[in-house]
Amino acid sequence: MKSFGSDNHSGIHPLILEALAEANKEHCPAYGDDPCSVLLKKELKRRFGCTDSCTVFNGTGANVLALKVLTNSWNAVICAETAHIQVDECGAPEKHTGCKLLTVQTPDGKLTPERVRPLLHGFGFQHHAQPRVISISQPTELGTLYTLEEMRSLADLAHEYGMFLHVDGARLANALAAMGETPEMMTRGVGADVVSLGGTKNGLMVGEAVLFFSSEFSETLLYQRKQLTQLASKMRFISAQLNAYLKDDLYIRLADHSNRMAAYLAQRLKQIPQVRITQPVQTNAVFAILPREVREQLMQEYCFYIWNEETGEVRWMTSFDTEQTDVDAFADRIEWLCRK
Amino acid sequence: MKSFGSDNHSGIHPLILEALAEANKEHCPAYGDDPCSVLLKKELKRRFGCTDSCTVFNGTGANVLALKVLTNSWNAVICAETAHIQVDECGAPEKHTGCKLLTVQTPDGKLTPERVRPLLHGFGFQHHAQPRVISISQPTELGTLYTLEEMRSLADLAHEYGMFLHVDGARLANALAAMGETPEMMTRGVGADVVSLGGTKNGLMVGEAVLFFSSEFSETLLYQRKQLTQLASKMRFISAQLNAYLKDDLYIRLADHSNRMAAYLAQRLKQIPQVRITQPVQTNAVFAILPREVREQLMQEYCFYIWNEETGEVRWMTSFDTEQTDVDAFADRIEWLCRK
Amino acid sequence: MKSFGSDNHSGIHPLILEALAEANKEHCPAYGDDPCSVLLKKELKRRFGCTDSCTVFNGTGANVLALKVLTNSWNAVICAETAHIQVDECGAPEKHTGCKLLTVQTPDGKLTPERVRPLLHGFGFQHHAQPRVISISQPTELGTLYTLEEMRSLADLAHEYGMFLHVDGARLANALAAMGETPEMMTRGVGADVVSLGGTKNGLMVGEAVLFFSSEFSETLLYQRKQLTQLASKMRFISAQLNAYLKDDLYIRLADHSNRMAAYLAQRLKQIPQVRITQPVQTNAVFAILPREVREQLMQEYCFYIWNEETGEVRWMTSFDTEQTDVDAFADRIEWLCRK
Amino acid sequence: MKSFGSDNHSGIHPLILEALAEANKEHCPAYGDDPCSVLLKKELKRRFGCTDSCTVFNGTGANVLALKVLTNSWNAVICAETAHIQVDECGAPEKHTGCKLLTVQTPDGKLTPERVRPLLHGFGFQHHAQPRVISISQPTELGTLYTLEEMRSLADLAHEYGMFLHVDGARLANALAAMGETPEMMTRGVGADVVSLGGTKNGLMVGEAVLFFSSEFSETLLYQRKQLTQLASKMRFISAQLNAYLKDDLYIRLADHSNRMAAYLAQRLKQIPQVRITQPVQTNAVFAILPREVREQLMQEYCFYIWNEETGEVRWMTSFDTEQTDVDAFADRIEWLCRK
Repeated sequence: MKSFGSDNHSGIHPLILEALAEANKEHCPAYGDDPCSVLLKKELKRRFGCTDSCTVFNGTGANVLALKVLTNSWNAVICAETAHIQVDECGAPEKHTGCKLLTVQTPDGKLTPERVRPLLHGFGFQHHAQPRVISISQPTELGTLYTLEEMRSLADLAHEYGMFLHVDGARLANALAAMGETPEMMTRGVGADVVSLGGTKNGLMVGEAVLFFSSEFSETLLYQRKQLTQLASKMRFISAQLNAYLKDDLYIRLADHSNRMAAYLAQRLKQIPQVRITQPVQTNAVFAILPREVREQLMQEYCFYIWNEETGEVRWMTSFDTEQTDVDAFADRIEWLCRK
Repeated sequence: MKSFGSDNHSGIHPLILEALAEANKEHCPAYGDDPCSVLLKKELKRRFGCTDSCTVFNGTGANVLALKVLTNSWNAVICAETAHIQVDECGAPEKHTGCKLLTVQTPDGKLTPERVRPLLHGFGFQHHAQPRVISISQPTELGTLYTLEEMRSLADLAHEYGMFLHVDGARLANALAAMGETPEMMTRGVGADVVSLGGTKNGLMVGEAVLFFSSEFSETLLYQRKQLTQLASKMRFISAQLNAYLKDDLYIRLADHSNRMAAYLAQRLKQIPQVRITQPVQTNAVFAILPREVREQLMQEYCFYIWNEETGEVRWMTSFDTEQTDVDAFADRIEWLCRK
Repeated sequence: MKSFGSDNHSGIHPLILEALAEANKEHCPAYGDDPCSVLLKKELKRRFGCTDSCTVFNGTGANVLALKVLTNSWNAVICAETAHIQVDECGAPEKHTGCKLLTVQTPDGKLTPERVRPLLHGFGFQHHAQPRVISISQPTELGTLYTLEEMRSLADLAHEYGMFLHVDGARLANALAAMGETPEMMTRGVGADVVSLGGTKNGLMVGEAVLFFSSEFSETLLYQRKQLTQLASKMRFISAQLNAYLKDDLYIRLADHSNRMAAYLAQRLKQIPQVRITQPVQTNAVFAILPREVREQLMQEYCFYIWNEETGEVRWMTSFDTEQTDVDAFADRIEWLCRK
Repeated sequence: MKSFGSDNHSGIHPLILEALAEANKEHCPAYGDDPCSVLLKKELKRRFGCTDSCTVFNGTGANVLALKVLTNSWNAVICAETAHIQVDECGAPEKHTGCKLLTVQTPDGKLTPERVRPLLHGFGFQHHAQPRVISISQPTELGTLYTLEEMRSLADLAHEYGMFLHVDGARLANALAAMGETPEMMTRGVGADVVSLGGTKNGLMVGEAVLFFSSEFSETLLYQRKQLTQLASKMRFISAQLNAYLKDDLYIRLADHSNRMAAYLAQRLKQIPQVRITQPVQTNAVFAILPREVREQLMQEYCFYIWNEETGEVRWMTSFDTEQTDVDAFADRIEWLCRK
């Protein structure tokens, strides 16, 4: 039975697993001096236009590394109240960087220059944690999307103040698939300074990348990653997965499939009057409120999470391997429970 | 061509790769709520007698988590000057724990109560970082072994002062294979409080475990791992590797093979008068000094590292998949170069 | 000319300076083993009912020490959006404790159980920074006061969840003077766990105290203070100031005077129709909005700060040595500027 | 009775106390925007040739701030095994900077290029904490002195590797008095990058300064100090002390007196055959070994500390207000106890 609880409930895509076996042929230098890792750097550069990149184990590692490279301990990072770095990383950004996170309330998980600007003060005032990074998630944790113009306006705002734009792209592939933009347009093109590029939620076993868009970050990157405990010894096996992920745009094709399954789930749910979809379904997440007794029964049968304890809003995610029949079975069940 | 540079130059053992494919069958809860991870906890408990355990990505992650759980920021950790936590982790222990590392000079990488005791002072003195952990590596970074009695004497010393014994067991399997002791005897049995149990250097793709021998550590463990960025989302794939690793004592059998290959290499080298072996070969490492021009030529052909820049001492490691013919080819080449 | 910019624009009260001279008679042990420091601990215990206490240099030191003692790095601290620890300490709480600060919007700087309760979730969930401290300021940074019942309800809420109540009492004397409560009633009596007790803003040269209301905190206190760089070597001179401060309730009498001067200023301002007082004047702060051109002219003559850039709201503080004639001169000037 | 236990057992020099009273005349801006603090910066610049400076509360604060400004978290700081930052700061340098301290064994507390050079390796190697600072104490914790040439050779070595020289000058005045060099010669002149300049051990109530010798450090200095909790609100009272300290070279005259008293004590002790002086007496410290029963009796009468538990070596310090009659009384007593 497929889970709608999270896209990391899925497993490894067959081509990724194959790439692991393929990379397992010989002895290789460790810590990045292997052909897979060298190729990956080249491929990331070619596709995203980044100046440098590195692999890490997981999303928290990617985000913390990105923020640590961009900040000093007396800086502040501005993010949405719903941001993964604020809500789901157990305070790792604060612990590792020493920075303060300044949060912004939003209806849809999206920062705007208007919402950010009131926090851009106190520069040069020694009592005030100095704003240094605007961090956004593309897509957001609510499954919503920034247009390129919206991203660019935040990058411009950041740069106007000598700050940086970080993009948490744990599901960047879903944004690329949904918007049909090139990877470079959505990263370098909009003025992003550092991007966390997700893999694990979209078919990898383990592995993410961090992309840097200015050569000034390269000097300290390796020490920062190592000290953060995010340096893989047999790195070829992380890199090989990411190479297969990028090859022939597999990552975009997988994300596109997830997105379509979420759209299909939303379409089915719209037929059920008792279910209210609460966020635009733009990628692979569906947020909804449904009758309490239906929700409670459904949670005994399927694994998924309540997003908002107060309203009872739930989050359903589709994965690269969710099939239409899985969605139909799930929606049928909700329909049946609602009718009872 | 097989590398003698490090045991992490090797790849994934076929049974481990098979276990990955096997674990890839269905959707599963993430973050440890999967059957593989539940089984792993049970198996580690059964074999090592630990009260709790958790998986992490790499050796630095394992050691830092172990030390963070055992300490407060004003504590000190006592270790050998050659310890991995001192030499090879880019200051990660200090950064994450805030603790001071107090180092002890040793001829063989081994602490003894006599060498540690002079550092056990200043308790209750507010100016002094309070000693809290004795950290040893079994086997040591020099490939040498502690007897069980030697380990126990250090645990006893630690406990006498209200301190803890941490064992960096990145290659613990090699110690178990070499000494023929049970896992429990070498950990719980000697009084260890926390043990880093290595996997990656001995046939895993990525994954280590940390074993805890008192229930007092369990309360904070999960938050500490998450905040350290060492929590895997698709954890089943780390756990599945470790399950296959433990099954039928695969880990000991692999380590035993590595050890034998190192012993064979040492035996071959002893026939070459120009080569001097500098440490007892007790596990899978051979330390040696050889003529500079031989070393320089050999380093152009094989990847390995100089251990001591001043003496020119080199380190050679064997792996689970090193074959006797690999050793012969390597030793033949050294012999030939020495004769020239 | 007296400043209305901050209560730390004032100097040292004559009795405090005298106490410094008095304490300067002989050689003394350093770091707290002197008679002044011993006496201070006794006096703080007697008056506040604390189990332990220590001196620090400044308010940020006091707050950071308090929070560090109460937390582990994966914890969260809940405070008002206007709290000093959030706004005015350059991220020191995050840097030193590793904790996340969760902020609450308030109209008056005061937390309530209703405002705090929505943040009390995610306990036991490893992704979530675990709430551990509710931190309030008494009086608040807006000069407003908690009743004892309000304080107690927050302490009860904290304790219900196994959390702690920290009180930033940088101006606690002003609250004591305004409310006529005993020190013990406002700290131990309401269930506070740790209290930062201010001195510098109320007549000391340099020095604050931190009061602990459970013996469990004593064990690590000294190391925490030393490691935080807040241990004074010639501590007798900090303690002597605080002893004089407590003696015959000097601290309450000084605060009472400040409070009265603020009340008098408010009374004068209420006569000026162009000036709007924006917060209840309960201690020694007056918040007001006045015509922009008046404000701008006044800021060229007097040193004070804009509190809210958007509304133009300003903050005026009175001090232990503010005299009625100072207030009159200031109010006259505002009146004159408004009339122009 | 005067103490020979530490130079911070003494009190405040009368001229310093007078300066406090003098600075207490009016309201003043806080946090450094006062005339005393402005003057201090100018005076420090004039005397030491520094580009910038700031005040802090204590020696640990000075050293930690200096090291934090010079380093990133993955750096290493090289110091003598006896350095205050290693031995007496409860791990504050590691906690605040994240850096590793690499220690060097010395007979006399003094680093030399020969002793430091073996630690200058691993540059560019991601596993290795990158050496960034050589930190020396002038005079050392053993009371010994570096010649200017010795200091310069360490600065040159540091700069050769792109590193910095930090000088812990908690007792720099004693070195200046003993060597007759100008402040600028012993700091900027030898190539020091940052200097901790002590005040408290030499007649101040509380206060130290940190001197920076390159303008690159100024940008982050204020935030670093504030975040470290070392920013004084009523800073004028720290600055006023330091101004009086510098005026007419009071600091050098006081240190000169201390030095002379130590020399006189050493001269007296040399007459007592049972007492062995163990370090050259070059400033205000005398290290000696004396018969155990004499030491034990003496410690019941006088407050001082055992420096080395194993050898029984003790440390005696003289202060700015130690008088010849104090030394005589102390030496007479030792003599009498030795004769018994």
